[in-house]
Amino acid sequence: MEAEATPAVKRLGLQQDDPRIIPGPAPCVTFSGDYEGVAVHVVWTGRDAKHGVDLVGTVPASLATYLALQAWPDADLVISSGTAGGFKAQGAAIGDVFVSTGKLHHDRRIPLPGFDKYGIGFIESLPTPNLQAALGLKAGVVSTGDSLDYTDKDMAVMLDHSVAVKEMEAGSVAWAAQLFGKPLLCIKAVLPRVLEFLGGRGVQDL
Amino acid sequence: MEAEATPAVKRLGLQQDDPRIIPGPAPCVTFSGDYEGVAVHVVWTGRDAKHGVDLVGTVPASLATYLALQAWPDADLVISSGTAGGFKAQGAAIGDVFVSTGKLHHDRRIPLPGFDKYGIGFIESLPTPNLQAALGLKAGVVSTGDSLDYTDKDMAVMLDHSVAVKEMEAGSVAWAAQLFGKPLLCIKAVLPRVLEFLGGRGVQDL
Repeated sequence: MEAEATPAVKRLGLQQDDPRIIPGPAPCVTFSGDYEGVAVHVVWTGRDAKHGVDLVGTVPASLATYLALQAWPDADLVISSGTAGGFKAQGAAIGDVFVSTGKLHHDRRIPLPGFDKYGIGFIESLPTPNLQAALGLKAGVVSTGDSLDYTDKDMAVMLDHSVAVKEMEAGSVAWAAQLFGKPLLCIKAVLPRVLEFLGGRGVQDL
Repeated sequence: MEAEATPAVKRLGLQQDDPRIIPGPAPCVTFSGDYEGVAVHVVWTGRDAKHGVDLVGTVPASLATYLALQAWPDADLVISSGTAGGFKAQGAAIGDVFVSTGKLHHDRRIPLPGFDKYGIGFIESLPTPNLQAALGLKAGVVSTGDSLDYTDKDMAVMLDHSVAVKEMEAGSVAWAAQLFGKPLLCIKAVLPRVLEFLGGRGVQDL
Protein backbone atom coordinates (compact mmCIF):
# COMPACT_ATOMS: atom_id res chain seq x y z
CA MET A 1 0.00 0.00 0.00
CA GLU A 2 1.04 3.61 -0.51
CA ALA A 3 0.97 4.11 3.28
CA GLU A 4 3.55 1.32 3.60
CA ALA A 5 5.77 2.62 0.77
CA THR A 6 5.87 6.31 1.67
CA PRO A 7 7.92 6.05 4.90
CA ALA A 8 10.62 4.03 3.09
CA VAL A 9 10.65 6.48 0.18
CA LYS A 10 11.11 9.44 2.56
CA ARG A 11 13.62 7.77 4.86
CA LEU A 12 15.80 6.63 1.95
CA GLY A 13 15.48 9.95 0.08
CA LEU A 14 14.11 8.36 -3.10
CA GLN A 15 12.41 10.20 -5.96
CA GLN A 16 9.43 9.05 -8.01
CA ASP A 17 10.62 7.84 -11.41
CA ASP A 18 9.40 10.38 -13.96
CA PRO A 19 8.98 9.48 -16.76
CA ARG A 20 7.83 6.04 -15.66
CA ILE A 21 10.40 3.26 -15.85
CA ILE A 22 7.68 0.58 -15.80
CA PRO A 23 5.34 1.57 -18.63
CA GLY A 24 1.57 1.28 -18.27
CA PRO A 25 -1.05 0.06 -18.25
CA ALA A 26 0.05 -1.53 -14.96
CA PRO A 27 -0.57 1.26 -12.47
CA CYS A 28 2.45 0.53 -10.31
CA VAL A 29 4.46 3.51 -9.14
CA THR A 30 8.23 3.37 -8.61
CA PHE A 31 10.75 5.46 -6.68
CA SER A 32 14.50 5.29 -7.07
CA GLY A 33 17.65 6.62 -5.52
CA ASP A 34 21.03 5.87 -4.02
CA TYR A 35 21.25 5.11 -0.32
CA GLU A 36 24.81 4.90 1.02
CA GLY A 37 26.09 3.60 -2.29
CA VAL A 38 23.29 1.09 -2.86
CA ALA A 39 20.76 1.61 -5.66
CA VAL A 40 17.31 1.26 -4.13
CA HIS A 41 13.96 1.07 -5.91
CA VAL A 42 10.62 1.07 -4.12
CA VAL A 43 7.68 -0.35 -6.05
CA TRP A 44 4.10 0.36 -5.03
CA THR A 45 1.40 -1.58 -6.89
CA GLY A 46 -0.68 1.57 -7.41
CA ARG A 47 -4.38 2.16 -7.16
CA ASP A 48 -7.48 0.51 -8.60
CA ALA A 49 -8.94 2.78 -11.28
CA LYS A 50 -12.53 1.78 -10.54
CA HIS A 51 -12.66 1.77 -6.74
CA GLY A 52 -9.80 4.17 -5.94
CA VAL A 53 -8.21 1.86 -3.39
CA ASP A 54 -4.67 0.52 -3.21
CA LEU A 55 -4.11 -2.65 -5.22
CA VAL A 56 -3.57 -5.01 -2.29
CA GLY A 57 -3.28 -8.77 -2.65
CA THR A 58 -1.34 -11.34 -4.59
CA VAL A 59 -2.32 -10.62 -8.21
CA PRO A 60 -1.13 -6.99 -8.49
CA ALA A 61 1.89 -7.72 -6.26
CA SER A 62 3.24 -10.48 -8.48
CA LEU A 63 2.68 -8.41 -11.62
CA ALA A 64 4.47 -5.37 -10.14
CA THR A 65 7.36 -7.54 -8.98
CA TYR A 66 7.71 -9.15 -12.39
CA LEU A 67 7.64 -5.83 -14.24
CA ALA A 68 10.11 -4.31 -11.76
CA LEU A 69 12.57 -7.14 -12.30
CA GLN A 70 12.23 -6.65 -16.06
CA ALA A 71 13.02 -2.97 -15.50
CA TRP A 72 15.94 -3.62 -13.14
CA PRO A 73 17.32 -7.02 -14.15
CA ASP A 74 20.52 -6.52 -12.17
CA ALA A 75 18.72 -6.30 -8.83
CA ASP A 76 20.52 -8.36 -6.19
CA LEU A 77 17.67 -8.75 -3.73
CA VAL A 78 13.88 -8.38 -3.57
CA ILE A 79 12.35 -7.28 -0.26
CA SER A 80 8.63 -7.57 0.45
CA SER A 81 8.02 -5.05 3.23
CA GLY A 82 4.99 -3.73 5.04
CA THR A 83 2.61 -4.43 7.88
CA ALA A 84 1.20 -7.72 9.06
CA GLY A 85 -0.83 -9.48 11.68
CA GLY A 86 1.22 -11.50 14.16
CA PHE A 87 0.74 -14.73 16.10
CA LYS A 88 1.55 -14.79 19.81
CA ALA A 89 2.42 -18.48 19.65
CA GLN A 90 5.40 -17.58 17.48
CA GLY A 91 6.42 -14.70 19.76
CA ALA A 92 4.80 -11.81 17.88
CA ALA A 93 3.81 -8.63 19.72
CA ILE A 94 2.64 -5.23 18.53
CA GLY A 95 5.62 -3.22 17.34
CA ASP A 96 7.74 -6.23 16.42
CA VAL A 97 9.54 -6.27 13.13
CA PHE A 98 9.89 -9.74 11.65
CA VAL A 99 12.30 -10.86 8.98
CA SER A 100 11.14 -13.92 7.06
CA THR A 101 12.68 -17.36 7.16
CA GLY A 102 10.26 -18.46 4.47
CA LYS A 103 6.90 -17.63 2.96
CA LEU A 104 3.84 -19.55 1.85
CA HIS A 105 0.18 -19.18 0.84
CA HIS A 106 -2.50 -20.26 3.32
CA ASP A 107 -5.52 -19.95 1.00
CA ARG A 108 -4.58 -22.04 -2.04
CA ARG A 109 -5.87 -25.55 -1.34
CA ILE A 110 -5.29 -27.90 -4.28
CA PRO A 111 -5.29 -31.44 -2.85
CA LEU A 112 -3.76 -33.21 -5.85
CA PRO A 113 -0.21 -34.62 -6.04
CA GLY A 114 2.29 -31.83 -6.73
CA PHE A 115 -0.45 -29.22 -6.95
CA ASP A 116 -0.79 -29.30 -3.16
CA LYS A 117 2.81 -28.17 -2.64
CA TYR A 118 2.60 -25.71 -5.53
CA GLY A 119 -0.50 -24.19 -3.93
CA ILE A 120 1.17 -23.75 -0.55
CA GLY A 121 4.15 -22.41 -2.47
CA PHE A 122 6.70 -22.49 0.34
CA ILE A 123 9.85 -20.62 -0.63
CA GLU A 124 12.77 -20.21 1.76
CA SER A 125 13.97 -16.68 2.34
CA LEU A 126 17.54 -15.50 2.10
CA PRO A 127 19.22 -16.36 5.42
CA THR A 128 19.84 -13.19 7.44
CA PRO A 129 21.56 -14.06 10.75
CA ASN A 130 23.66 -10.88 10.78
CA LEU A 131 20.69 -8.63 9.92
CA GLN A 132 18.59 -10.22 12.66
CA ALA A 133 21.37 -9.82 15.24
CA ALA A 134 22.34 -6.28 14.23
CA LEU A 135 18.79 -4.92 14.27
CA GLY A 136 17.29 -7.15 16.94
CA LEU A 137 14.66 -8.50 14.58
CA LYS A 138 12.55 -11.54 15.21
CA ALA A 139 12.46 -14.18 12.49
CA GLY A 140 9.65 -16.41 11.29
CA VAL A 141 7.50 -17.69 8.48
CA VAL A 142 5.35 -15.17 6.60
CA SER A 143 1.99 -16.40 5.28
CA THR A 144 0.01 -14.77 2.50
CA GLY A 145 -3.68 -14.75 1.68
CA ASP A 146 -6.03 -12.55 -0.33
CA SER A 147 -8.39 -11.87 2.57
CA LEU A 148 -7.94 -9.72 5.66
CA ASP A 149 -9.56 -12.35 7.83
CA TYR A 150 -9.01 -16.09 7.68
CA THR A 151 -11.02 -19.27 7.69
CA ASP A 152 -10.50 -22.42 9.73
CA LYS A 153 -8.86 -23.97 6.68
CA ASP A 154 -6.46 -21.02 6.38
CA MET A 155 -5.62 -21.33 10.07
CA ALA A 156 -4.92 -25.05 9.74
CA VAL A 157 -2.30 -24.31 7.08
CA MET A 158 -0.76 -21.53 9.17
CA LEU A 159 -0.58 -23.74 12.29
CA ASP A 160 0.90 -26.58 10.27
CA HIS A 161 3.74 -24.29 9.15
CA SER A 162 4.25 -22.40 12.46
CA VAL A 163 3.48 -19.10 10.76
CA ALA A 164 4.63 -15.99 12.66
CA VAL A 165 2.98 -13.22 10.64
CA LYS A 166 0.15 -13.04 8.10
CA GLU A 167 -0.23 -10.55 5.28
CA MET A 168 -1.46 -10.31 1.69
CA GLU A 169 1.40 -10.09 -0.81
CA ALA A 170 4.71 -11.77 0.13
CA GLY A 171 3.86 -15.15 -1.36
CA SER A 172 3.30 -13.86 -4.86
CA VAL A 173 6.18 -11.38 -4.69
CA ALA A 174 8.44 -14.32 -3.88
CA TRP A 175 7.00 -16.38 -6.74
CA ALA A 176 7.79 -13.63 -9.26
CA ALA A 177 11.25 -13.09 -7.76
CA GLN A 178 11.96 -16.80 -7.97
CA LEU A 179 11.16 -16.79 -11.70
CA PHE A 180 14.10 -14.39 -12.11
CA GLY A 181 16.28 -16.41 -9.73
CA LYS A 182 16.40 -13.52 -7.28
CA PRO A 183 16.72 -14.03 -3.53
CA LEU A 184 13.91 -12.58 -1.44
CA LEU A 185 13.27 -11.66 2.13
CA CYS A 186 10.31 -10.09 3.85
CA ILE A 187 10.38 -7.36 6.49
CA LYS A 188 6.99 -7.22 8.20
CA ALA A 189 6.02 -4.96 11.06
CA VAL A 190 3.26 -6.02 13.45
CA LEU A 191 1.51 -2.70 13.92
CA PRO A 192 -1.54 -1.45 15.85
CA ARG A 193 -3.09 -0.36 12.56
CA VAL A 194 -3.22 -4.00 11.57
CA LEU A 195 -5.29 -4.65 14.66
CA GLU A 196 -7.95 -2.46 13.19
CA PHE A 197 -7.72 -4.20 9.81
CA LEU A 198 -8.13 -7.59 11.38
CA GLY A 199 -11.05 -6.61 13.58
CA GLY A 200 -8.98 -6.35 16.73
CA ARG A 201 -7.18 -9.59 16.05
CA GLY A 202 -3.77 -8.37 14.92
CA VAL A 203 -2.08 -10.53 17.54
CA GLN A 204 -3.55 -13.97 17.94
CA ASP A 205 -3.61 -16.25 20.96
CA LEU A 206 -2.76 -19.61 19.50
CA MET B 1 -3.85 -26.05 -17.84
CA GLU B 2 -2.12 -27.70 -20.79
CA ALA B 3 -4.96 -30.25 -20.95
CA GLU B 4 -7.38 -27.36 -21.45
CA ALA B 5 -5.24 -25.57 -24.04
CA THR B 6 -4.30 -28.52 -26.23
CA PRO B 7 -7.76 -29.27 -27.70
CA ALA B 8 -8.14 -25.64 -28.78
CA VAL B 9 -4.65 -25.58 -30.28
CA LYS B 10 -5.38 -28.73 -32.30
CA ARG B 11 -8.90 -27.77 -33.35
CA LEU B 12 -7.78 -24.32 -34.53
CA GLY B 13 -4.63 -25.62 -36.21
CA LEU B 14 -2.29 -23.37 -34.25
CA GLN B 15 1.49 -23.74 -33.98
CA GLN B 16 3.65 -23.16 -30.91
CA ASP B 17 5.47 -19.83 -31.24
CA ASP B 18 9.14 -20.64 -31.74
CA PRO B 19 11.16 -18.61 -30.92
CA ARG B 20 9.06 -17.46 -27.99
CA ILE B 21 7.05 -14.30 -28.47
CA ILE B 22 6.69 -13.78 -24.73
CA PRO B 23 10.27 -13.91 -23.43
CA GLY B 24 11.14 -15.65 -20.17
CA PRO B 25 11.45 -16.06 -17.32
CA ALA B 26 7.64 -16.36 -17.26
CA PRO B 27 7.12 -19.98 -18.33
CA CYS B 28 3.96 -19.32 -20.33
CA VAL B 29 3.71 -21.08 -23.68
CA THR B 30 1.92 -19.55 -26.66
CA PHE B 31 0.44 -20.89 -29.88
CA SER B 32 -0.59 -18.80 -32.86
CA GLY B 33 -2.34 -19.14 -36.18
CA ASP B 34 -5.05 -17.95 -38.47
CA TYR B 35 -8.51 -19.46 -38.17
CA GLU B 36 -10.91 -18.46 -40.93
CA GLY B 37 -9.23 -15.07 -41.27
CA VAL B 38 -8.99 -14.35 -37.56
CA ALA B 39 -5.60 -14.26 -35.84
CA VAL B 40 -5.83 -16.48 -32.79
CA HIS B 41 -3.31 -16.89 -29.97
CA VAL B 42 -3.64 -19.47 -27.21
CA VAL B 43 -1.71 -18.77 -24.02
CA TRP B 44 -0.99 -21.48 -21.48
CA THR B 45 0.57 -20.36 -18.19
CA GLY B 46 3.16 -23.12 -18.31
CA ARG B 47 4.52 -25.40 -15.63
CA ASP B 48 5.97 -24.89 -12.17
CA ALA B 49 9.71 -25.57 -12.33
CA LYS B 50 9.89 -26.97 -8.80
CA HIS B 51 6.81 -29.20 -8.64
CA GLY B 52 6.31 -29.96 -12.33
CA VAL B 53 2.59 -29.13 -12.26
CA ASP B 54 0.61 -26.70 -14.39
CA LEU B 55 0.60 -23.15 -13.04
CA VAL B 56 -3.07 -22.99 -12.09
CA GLY B 57 -4.61 -20.12 -10.16
CA THR B 58 -4.88 -16.37 -10.30
CA VAL B 59 -1.27 -15.23 -9.98
CA PRO B 60 0.23 -16.97 -13.05
CA ALA B 61 -2.97 -16.37 -15.05
CA SER B 62 -2.89 -12.59 -14.60
CA LEU B 63 0.82 -12.44 -15.40
CA ALA B 64 0.41 -14.52 -18.57
CA THR B 65 -2.54 -12.38 -19.68
CA TYR B 66 -0.61 -9.17 -19.08
CA LEU B 67 2.45 -10.39 -20.98
CA ALA B 68 0.29 -11.69 -23.83
CA LEU B 69 -1.42 -8.32 -24.23
CA GLN B 70 1.99 -6.65 -24.29
CA ALA B 71 2.98 -9.09 -27.03
CA TRP B 72 -0.26 -8.67 -29.01
CA PRO B 73 -1.47 -5.15 -28.18
CA ASP B 74 -3.96 -5.14 -31.07
CA ALA B 75 -5.98 -8.04 -29.66
CA ASP B 76 -9.71 -7.35 -29.91
CA LEU B 77 -10.91 -9.82 -27.31
CA VAL B 78 -9.59 -11.91 -24.43
CA ILE B 79 -11.26 -15.28 -23.75
CA SER B 80 -10.69 -17.22 -20.54
CA SER B 81 -11.58 -20.78 -21.44
CA GLY B 82 -11.41 -24.10 -19.69
CA THR B 83 -13.24 -26.39 -17.30
CA ALA B 84 -15.23 -25.49 -14.22
CA GLY B 85 -17.51 -26.77 -11.51
CA GLY B 86 -21.17 -25.87 -11.99
CA PHE B 87 -24.09 -25.04 -9.71
CA LYS B 88 -27.41 -26.76 -10.27
CA ALA B 89 -29.30 -23.78 -8.86
CA GLN B 90 -28.12 -21.77 -11.85
CA GLY B 91 -28.99 -24.54 -14.30
CA ALA B 92 -25.58 -26.15 -14.66
CA ALA B 93 -25.26 -29.79 -15.66
CA ILE B 94 -22.32 -31.97 -16.66
CA GLY B 95 -21.44 -31.26 -20.28
CA ASP B 96 -22.81 -27.73 -20.31
CA VAL B 97 -20.75 -24.96 -21.81
CA PHE B 98 -21.28 -21.62 -20.14
CA VAL B 99 -20.44 -18.20 -21.49
CA SER B 100 -19.89 -15.57 -18.82
CA THR B 101 -22.10 -12.61 -18.09
CA GLY B 102 -19.56 -11.43 -15.53
CA LYS B 103 -16.81 -12.69 -13.28
CA LEU B 104 -15.73 -12.16 -9.70
CA HIS B 105 -13.49 -13.51 -6.94
CA HIS B 106 -15.09 -15.47 -4.08
CA ASP B 107 -12.01 -15.73 -1.83
CA ARG B 108 -10.82 -12.14 -1.44
CA ARG B 109 -12.58 -10.77 1.65
CA ILE B 110 -11.45 -7.23 2.48
CA PRO B 111 -14.25 -5.66 4.54
CA LEU B 112 -13.15 -2.03 4.26
CA PRO B 113 -14.87 0.66 2.17
CA GLY B 114 -13.88 0.35 -1.48
CA PHE B 115 -11.54 -2.55 -0.77
CA ASP B 116 -14.57 -4.82 -0.37
CA LYS B 117 -15.70 -4.22 -3.95
CA TYR B 118 -12.13 -4.31 -5.25
CA GLY B 119 -11.68 -7.71 -3.56
CA ILE B 120 -14.80 -9.18 -5.14
CA GLY B 121 -13.65 -7.58 -8.38
CA PHE B 122 -16.84 -7.99 -10.37
CA ILE B 123 -16.25 -7.23 -14.05
CA GLU B 124 -19.02 -7.53 -16.62
CA SER B 125 -18.29 -9.69 -19.63
CA LEU B 126 -18.76 -8.71 -23.23
CA PRO B 127 -22.46 -9.27 -24.05
CA THR B 128 -22.84 -12.29 -26.35
CA PRO B 129 -26.54 -12.79 -27.18
CA ASN B 130 -25.81 -13.98 -30.73
CA LEU B 131 -23.06 -16.36 -29.61
CA GLN B 132 -25.31 -17.87 -26.95
CA ALA B 133 -28.17 -18.32 -29.40
CA ALA B 134 -26.05 -19.67 -32.25
CA LEU B 135 -24.24 -22.26 -30.15
CA GLY B 136 -26.94 -22.97 -27.58
CA LEU B 137 -24.72 -21.94 -24.69
CA LYS B 138 -25.94 -21.22 -21.20
CA ALA B 139 -24.90 -17.91 -19.65
CA GLY B 140 -24.00 -17.02 -16.10
CA VAL B 141 -21.54 -15.53 -13.65
CA VAL B 142 -18.10 -17.14 -13.37
CA SER B 143 -16.45 -17.11 -9.95
CA THR B 144 -12.74 -17.52 -9.31
CA GLY B 145 -10.80 -18.77 -6.32
CA ASP B 146 -7.33 -20.18 -5.70
CA SER B 147 -8.57 -23.41 -4.10
CA LEU B 148 -10.24 -26.43 -5.67
CA ASP B 149 -12.68 -26.66 -2.79
CA TYR B 150 -14.48 -23.79 -1.08
CA THR B 151 -15.28 -22.58 2.40
CA ASP B 152 -18.60 -21.40 3.81
CA LYS B 153 -17.39 -17.83 3.30
CA ASP B 154 -16.59 -18.56 -0.35
CA MET B 155 -20.04 -20.08 -0.80
CA ALA B 156 -21.74 -17.04 0.75
CA VAL B 157 -20.11 -14.81 -1.86
CA MET B 158 -21.07 -17.18 -4.67
CA LEU B 159 -24.68 -17.40 -3.51
CA ASP B 160 -24.86 -13.63 -3.13
CA HIS B 161 -23.86 -13.23 -6.78
CA SER B 162 -25.86 -16.15 -8.22
CA VAL B 163 -22.69 -17.76 -9.52
CA ALA B 164 -23.19 -20.41 -12.20
CA VAL B 165 -19.70 -21.89 -12.47
CA LYS B 166 -16.57 -21.86 -10.32
CA GLU B 167 -12.98 -22.08 -11.48
CA MET B 168 -9.51 -20.76 -10.68
CA GLU B 169 -8.35 -18.14 -13.18
CA ALA B 170 -11.01 -16.02 -14.91
CA GLY B 171 -11.08 -13.26 -12.29
CA SER B 172 -7.43 -12.37 -12.63
CA VAL B 173 -7.41 -12.81 -16.42
CA ALA B 174 -10.22 -10.25 -16.56
CA TRP B 175 -8.32 -7.89 -14.24
CA ALA B 176 -5.28 -7.91 -16.51
CA ALA B 177 -7.43 -7.54 -19.64
CA GLN B 178 -9.22 -4.58 -18.07
CA LEU B 179 -5.89 -2.81 -17.50
CA PHE B 180 -5.46 -2.84 -21.28
CA GLY B 181 -9.09 -1.84 -21.87
CA LYS B 182 -9.79 -5.16 -23.59
CA PRO B 183 -13.21 -6.82 -23.49
CA LEU B 184 -13.29 -10.30 -22.00
CA LEU B 185 -15.55 -13.28 -21.94
CA CYS B 186 -15.21 -16.70 -20.40
CA ILE B 187 -16.12 -20.03 -21.98
CA LYS B 188 -16.30 -22.67 -19.26
CA ALA B 189 -17.24 -26.30 -19.73
CA VAL B 190 -18.74 -28.22 -16.81
CA LEU B 191 -17.00 -31.53 -17.27
CA PRO B 192 -16.94 -34.89 -15.48
CA ARG B 193 -13.23 -34.42 -14.88
CA VAL B 194 -14.09 -31.46 -12.70
CA LEU B 195 -16.18 -33.76 -10.56
CA GLU B 196 -13.04 -35.61 -9.66
CA PHE B 197 -11.16 -32.38 -8.93
CA LEU B 198 -13.90 -31.17 -6.64
CA GLY B 199 -14.25 -34.41 -4.76
CA GLY B 200 -17.35 -35.49 -6.58
CA ARG B 201 -18.98 -32.12 -6.21
CA GLY B 202 -18.63 -30.70 -9.70
CA VAL B 203 -22.34 -29.97 -9.79
CA GLN B 204 -23.78 -28.57 -6.60
CA ASP B 205 -27.27 -28.86 -5.19
CA LEU B 206 -27.96 -25.36 -3.93
